[in-house]
Amino acid sequence: MMLYFEDFKPGPFGTFGPLHVSREDLIAFAREYDPQPMHVDEEAAKHSMLKGLAGSGWHMCALTMRMMADGYILRSACLGAPGVDEVRWTAPLRPDDDLTLIAEVAGTRESKSRPDIGFVTMKHDLRNAADVSLMTLTTPIMMRRRGADKDAT
Amino acid sequence: MMLYFEDFKPGPFGTFGPLHVSREDLIAFAREYDPQPMHVDEEAAKHSMLKGLAGSGWHMCALTMRMMADGYILRSACLGAPGVDEVRWTAPLRPDDDLTLIAEVAGTRESKSRPDIGFVTMKHDLRNAADVSLMTLTTPIMMRRRGADKDAT
Repeated sequence: MMLYFEDFKPGPFGTFGPLHVSREDLIAFAREYDPQPMHVDEEAAKHSMLKGLAGSGWHMCALTMRMMADGYILRSACLGAPGVDEVRWTAPLRPDDDLTLIAEVAGTRESKSRPDIGFVTMKHDLRNAADVSLMTLTTPIMMRRRGADKDAT
Repeated sequence: MMLYFEDFKPGPFGTFGPLHVSREDLIAFAREYDPQPMHVDEEAAKHSMLKGLAGSGWHMCALTMRMMADGYILRSACLGAPGVDEVRWTAPLRPDDDLTLIAEVAGTRESKSRPDIGFVTMKHDLRNAADVSLMTLTTPIMMRRRGADKDAT
């Protein structure tokens, strides 16, 4: 079943995952995009505020996007997103974490300029296997309205 | 020279890059983290709102983090960041774009609870070689204050 704007109602939406992140994945992402000592160097990480090797916050965002895609975006009439409203990193991502994503519809609104689309604001809570919240991420997503397929691409 | 909280004053901060992103990089990131058709499939992308293959917005964020790291974070007393205040994706990232990052100090404040650190809010503008703004990204960064090295790790 394809999800359209009309299928997103404020309230709980779904829980997705688990997604495993290995030590190698964590270090590889950080070496490429965020080579700060606490993300790439075990020894330096021990002496950082994070008290041990921890993934980049941007890696958490990327993994969340993957869980969103597999969880609902790839079976939706998503047209993209204008940006991100807020991200809060609240606990470290650790090697070999198994991640779960809890998604909630924070709000919806019809587009003023385009009757064929609407905006769905999704709030995501990324949690580890101990049910500790690592990140919240709120983003508005553009969705086609049901029956508007032929107008909008 | 190491940069501390005191070295960040509201106003223009610096311009960093260029950083090249190849078609292969763009597709590889999207396959791993954001496999929506407009990011991984040339034909589908032509018919999307982005009118051609375009990188994931999260790839723009990751590339911006890399330019921040190389530009100033790795020579600063950065302790990490509590999150991201706002991201706006305003134009598509294209294969073989050469990216420039313009950084500005949007504001600073001392920590109320920890006299050894402060928060620096940085606003970043990611631009392509045609000087088109692709993304703005605003994030608060925790920085040690000068002379506080022995207290905070």
